[in-house]
Amino acid sequence: MKSVGRVETQYLDLPAPVPLDCGRELSPVRVAYETYGTLAPGGDNVILVCHALSGDAHAAGVSAEPAAAGTRDGFGAEDRDGAAGAALGWWDGMIGPGKAFDTDRYFVVCTNLLGGCRGTTGPSSIDPGTGRSYGSDFPVVTVADMVRVQKAALDALGVRRLAAVAGGSLGGMQALEWAVRYPDLVDAVVAIASTHGLHAQGVAWNAIAREAIMRDPAWQGGHYHGTGAAPEAGMGVARMIGHVTYLSAPALDDRFGRRLQAGDDISHTITGAEYQIESYLRHQAGSFVRRFDANTYLYLSRALTYFDLARQHGGGSLPRALSGLRARTLLIAFSSDWLYPPAASADIADALRGLGKEVEYHVIEAPYGHDSFLLEEARQTPLIQRFLAGEGGA
Amino acid sequence: MKSVGRVETQYLDLPAPVPLDCGRELSPVRVAYETYGTLAPGGDNVILVCHALSGDAHAAGVSAEPAAAGTRDGFGAEDRDGAAGAALGWWDGMIGPGKAFDTDRYFVVCTNLLGGCRGTTGPSSIDPGTGRSYGSDFPVVTVADMVRVQKAALDALGVRRLAAVAGGSLGGMQALEWAVRYPDLVDAVVAIASTHGLHAQGVAWNAIAREAIMRDPAWQGGHYHGTGAAPEAGMGVARMIGHVTYLSAPALDDRFGRRLQAGDDISHTITGAEYQIESYLRHQAGSFVRRFDANTYLYLSRALTYFDLARQHGGGSLPRALSGLRARTLLIAFSSDWLYPPAASADIADALRGLGKEVEYHVIEAPYGHDSFLLEEARQTPLIQRFLAGEGGA
Repeated sequence: MKSVGRVETQYLDLPAPVPLDCGRELSPVRVAYETYGTLAPGGDNVILVCHALSGDAHAAGVSAEPAAAGTRDGFGAEDRDGAAGAALGWWDGMIGPGKAFDTDRYFVVCTNLLGGCRGTTGPSSIDPGTGRSYGSDFPVVTVADMVRVQKAALDALGVRRLAAVAGGSLGGMQALEWAVRYPDLVDAVVAIASTHGLHAQGVAWNAIAREAIMRDPAWQGGHYHGTGAAPEAGMGVARMIGHVTYLSAPALDDRFGRRLQAGDDISHTITGAEYQIESYLRHQAGSFVRRFDANTYLYLSRALTYFDLARQHGGGSLPRALSGLRARTLLIAFSSDWLYPPAASADIADALRGLGKEVEYHVIEAPYGHDSFLLEEARQTPLIQRFLAGEGGA
Repeated sequence: MKSVGRVETQYLDLPAPVPLDCGRELSPVRVAYETYGTLAPGGDNVILVCHALSGDAHAAGVSAEPAAAGTRDGFGAEDRDGAAGAALGWWDGMIGPGKAFDTDRYFVVCTNLLGGCRGTTGPSSIDPGTGRSYGSDFPVVTVADMVRVQKAALDALGVRRLAAVAGGSLGGMQALEWAVRYPDLVDAVVAIASTHGLHAQGVAWNAIAREAIMRDPAWQGGHYHGTGAAPEAGMGVARMIGHVTYLSAPALDDRFGRRLQAGDDISHTITGAEYQIESYLRHQAGSFVRRFDANTYLYLSRALTYFDLARQHGGGSLPRALSGLRARTLLIAFSSDWLYPPAASADIADALRGLGKEVEYHVIEAPYGHDSFLLEEARQTPLIQRFLAGEGGA
């Protein structure tokens, strides 16, 4: 498959303060973004791609900067990091000439989301009021706030209408929020491995990950920037938790089983990594803390926990929340995804069907759990291509 | 149901050093234990009950000491803690007159396991070589070592033979180890919600919990005893992880859903407990760290991760490991237990059947996940009673 080739992240500063759900206004706001393909003269070929918790604006092509690698730098992540520091986008298998999001036809935009740490304004940005990083003084943002910022950025880029909004996980939440918030601007939604509201266990995992960060003394109440310390120990634990929840138990059995890291017998160690899975988790934690900001982790984890279409838009009713939606909707879930189980996508599909809206819902049988949205590119591609071409079947 | 009534934990000091799998010898070793019922003159009515990670010797009846509450002090745990500090044993619903382990007939013994923090020698005990707590100088113990200590304790109590060994989770591992290690001494095994070897995801959860403790600076390399500090922050995170893995996702949905802790709308907080499940986890973590030693958590988590019948006794083959077993075996698993899934019990049952041994295997449909072994007493009781009476069917 061809790639979009060499890309560079660009930046724009929003012209006006952004009003937030919490009641505060944020200013200035910078947005990091990348684009792939060419904007059609009529402006009717734009697809906004939204990233997940640990992703960034670098969704496709090769960048000279190190990759953030989507929500996942585990299984097969080796493939993502090219040689000599060149990094492949986190959804490169899905975005490019002839791919699911075909850059020969579409103008694909991806922005680093509000609260992020990869170029868009977030907790590590400078607070103009103090001249230092916001830290935990950064306003608590929601998925709706992320979408407001994307909207303002697209306005600044001259994009008036979206042929589609697409994303997986937290990215899928943004896509759904777009369609509900701006029903007249969105023609189609592709929400993958996502939900209208995380289930209790998902709320719990996110809470525990945040606890691990906030209980690290190096967090310093959220004001660790500039102190020379950072809650790396706690964020490592958070990442380990996340990693296990992104994968399925059978996938871990297949990949690691109970294999020892070295030798034929246990070495009776409390502190050492005895099993391959233990060593793998430590490695994942170590590489993650080097590239990600702990406060961004807290803020994005909170935002995706808060996301609740029914509560925010429907007074508790999902059908009411979706009643104004005008976009065609494609929902894809994965059979082994226990963090964002298919049932949530099925809820959305049922509600949309009940409202007489155009919706397709597919469950892909895949063993990799939630991370399937990053790994099962070959099986998502025809579904997305047919859907975008208006040829999908319910 | 009648209770065994008022009980008191007793203590005995083993007469000889205990040789351990790691090659070291441990001495002195004290064992905390409780007994319920009366030892028959022929000594043929003894049932050893083995506890799980966070349990203790107080399995039944009412103690004046605060309860350890088994592996679980969550759903329904309120029932366990009597008024005015009197604490009900962690398996009181299963042990007593007319109960699954009927104290009108059997003499039931429960010991706090080696490495524990509730009376039996463990990392918080005094190292005679230094006069201070062992801390992380305590030898890394295995389930086999726990069983060796139980054997020595039973010898000291004059018990020569076991009518049955029973336990859930880590307790079930001990029961299986007993039957394999001392085939001539064990007539029956009851292993509930247990396994012959934790799957990769279980290894991962345990590793992450240990990381959370060891990454807490208050752990101090394992030598926090006597410093006035303890890794409570890290152990709180470990406990939260454990708690979620002990319960099923549907059980959390039923109990908590996405209900907010206070008010009708979110309060935009990073540090606060916004959802009921978040508040619940914090509460569970807080009460656990007050009653449990972090090093014991590390050592027991390591021991249960190491447990691997096939590797330890069969050169990698489960049937070979079980080939010398002479006890009748009852295996109970729970449909929603994803930490110790039924598949592992099924493996054991298949291996025993293949060897022509007497085995019963039941999967109880229950929604509570791994904690079902502490909660589904009513449905386990007839299975256990019939099995112990020799009336079970395969």
